[in-house]
Amino acid sequence: MIQETPGPGGPIPPGGVVGVLGGGQLGRMLALAAARLGLKTHIFAPPGDNPAFDVAADHTPAAWDDLDALTGFAEACDVVTLEFENVPVAALEAIAAAAPVRPGRRALETAQDRLVEKSFLREHGLETAPFFDITDAASLTAALQAAGGQGILKTRRDGYDGKGQWRLSRAEDAAPALAALEGRPAILEGLVAFEREISVIAARGPDGATAAYEPAENRHENGILRESRVPAAISPDLAARAEAAALRLAGALDYVGVLGVEFFALPDGALLVNEFAPRVHNSGHWTEDACSIGQFELQIRAVCGWPLPTPRRHADAVMTNLLGDEASGWPAEATAPGAALRLYGKAAARAGRKMGHVTQLSPRRE
Amino acid sequence: MIQETPGPGGPIPPGGVVGVLGGGQLGRMLALAAARLGLKTHIFAPPGDNPAFDVAADHTPAAWDDLDALTGFAEACDVVTLEFENVPVAALEAIAAAAPVRPGRRALETAQDRLVEKSFLREHGLETAPFFDITDAASLTAALQAAGGQGILKTRRDGYDGKGQWRLSRAEDAAPALAALEGRPAILEGLVAFEREISVIAARGPDGATAAYEPAENRHENGILRESRVPAAISPDLAARAEAAALRLAGALDYVGVLGVEFFALPDGALLVNEFAPRVHNSGHWTEDACSIGQFELQIRAVCGWPLPTPRRHADAVMTNLLGDEASGWPAEATAPGAALRLYGKAAARAGRKMGHVTQLSPRRE
Repeated sequence: MIQETPGPGGPIPPGGVVGVLGGGQLGRMLALAAARLGLKTHIFAPPGDNPAFDVAADHTPAAWDDLDALTGFAEACDVVTLEFENVPVAALEAIAAAAPVRPGRRALETAQDRLVEKSFLREHGLETAPFFDITDAASLTAALQAAGGQGILKTRRDGYDGKGQWRLSRAEDAAPALAALEGRPAILEGLVAFEREISVIAARGPDGATAAYEPAENRHENGILRESRVPAAISPDLAARAEAAALRLAGALDYVGVLGVEFFALPDGALLVNEFAPRVHNSGHWTEDACSIGQFELQIRAVCGWPLPTPRRHADAVMTNLLGDEASGWPAEATAPGAALRLYGKAAARAGRKMGHVTQLSPRRE
Repeated sequence: MIQETPGPGGPIPPGGVVGVLGGGQLGRMLALAAARLGLKTHIFAPPGDNPAFDVAADHTPAAWDDLDALTGFAEACDVVTLEFENVPVAALEAIAAAAPVRPGRRALETAQDRLVEKSFLREHGLETAPFFDITDAASLTAALQAAGGQGILKTRRDGYDGKGQWRLSRAEDAAPALAALEGRPAILEGLVAFEREISVIAARGPDGATAAYEPAENRHENGILRESRVPAAISPDLAARAEAAALRLAGALDYVGVLGVEFFALPDGALLVNEFAPRVHNSGHWTEDACSIGQFELQIRAVCGWPLPTPRRHADAVMTNLLGDEASGWPAEATAPGAALRLYGKAAARAGRKMGHVTQLSPRRE
């Protein structure tokens, strides 16, 4: 089905087709949200275990370098969005020739490279931890010294959930970490003695309208998000600064869609951006069950040019990820009163793989 | 895919396939709820505008008398449920030979015939309005006289949303109504001076476990539900009696799944059952956005043998149906703060057709 792509001024009406790049749990939840608004979804993803295919009106299983498949997919969509930010630039160009891509290339290119991302943040007045460009042994040695003898070495591209990261705590750690990089460009991040980790999920529409959820407080284990809770135990001032920072970033990127921004809150009140994701974010899953509009619907609304009223939160919430075999505990999770259980329909429960989550709701305190 | 049907004692685990008879908005919302639990959906529906197809892993477009298609469908499912209660008995038999059908034949046969339904209710101690079996002009004349000169003539089978109903207010109305029946069996219901209409959505599992939502207060226009609100403006005693009646009915039917029971509340405190639907119900749509578990998930849980914790309501809610062209007002509906907009993805907005609904949430009062 080839449809006219609507102009920048008009929303995509019910019955329209939202293309989604990526077929995992985020694409699946985007498809469910689109369906609740009367929109159809078309998923593009490389062949494999793609649970989003099961809930989409159409799907295209093809590789990221199959430009013909990408073009055919884009021609069938009124707008294309994504659950996966590391889409190759050539793929984005093929899609953009046939349908608007939201968020756009600028946001994705910025998010795809940690060095570009952190430089962009600094340029726009957002603080980050110290970071250093690592190209070889000499630059790593110098950076480690400048960072006080310890830090986290991260590949510039393609890392997630703690993959492609090595914590260095003494000079002798540098050589094996450098070997593990296998020549990939990297950065060294200085360690930050943060008090807590928080994140903000924000949205921006094609007309510049914005909406944001209050910050969630996050806890990671082994580089993977374990738990997000709202309200975060932070001051109203800190919450307001985090929301303002997320919206400033969205504006600077001329962003369209939902983005997730992770922060370190320091004991002295400073707020550093850790990283941002140009998509719906694991630390925003609580919004699905605790708010009048969840982050997946907000993303669909933003990329389709729909109204973005500020979502209302009606409950306190603690979201816990179910990783790997933990998902086999679903009968107990399904029994807890006030718990919203979400399973992703993945076939194989590999260790650490995100299989589902449960959001425990409780009455909202004042 | 042919799968072993699990025994009555074991739940259908994530990854299992739930068959749904009917492809409209209720089937669509059942499919979305199943997906949130990691289950797949297979929709069976006659060819046509079936918005549930767009969100299901598989679908079989075939007629209700295509027994081969029904058998193939059932063999691909771990359990079969429905959004449409008027499935022919022969179709149910073909399905039941290959997969458990929940709710079962007894509940469906009872609900399919108003005379059988009301007789069943009375036999199980549930009060109803006066009703009379109508087979010809003489029985209608006698019934109208016994009912005080007025009543509502209803076909015994296949009526919904006010179709197949005629209000009679004087003896001369009998002849044209009888002609409109075209020989179909019917009942005459006596008019009831009710104070309000309420409904209870209840669930029962294969093991007899139950859960119920508090009553909603409903308002109909032209025989079609216009609005449901919670909390209903009724006493705790009346609410408790309505919930108990719904659960008694579920037990009497040896019911598995969700059922919706509509009541008339009379000024003297009496509670009459108007009718019940052996499925999720329009007057329960508010549960999707106001509770930790909505009625669609509760139905999936019940038919799959999952735990049925009592859903927690976290907001007050007013659900309004969007009928026919009203759905074209979606941009305004999408703007209201605290409103959860749901559109069904139907292609044609015929007059009176249910196209979507909006649930206005507000903070829960004590």
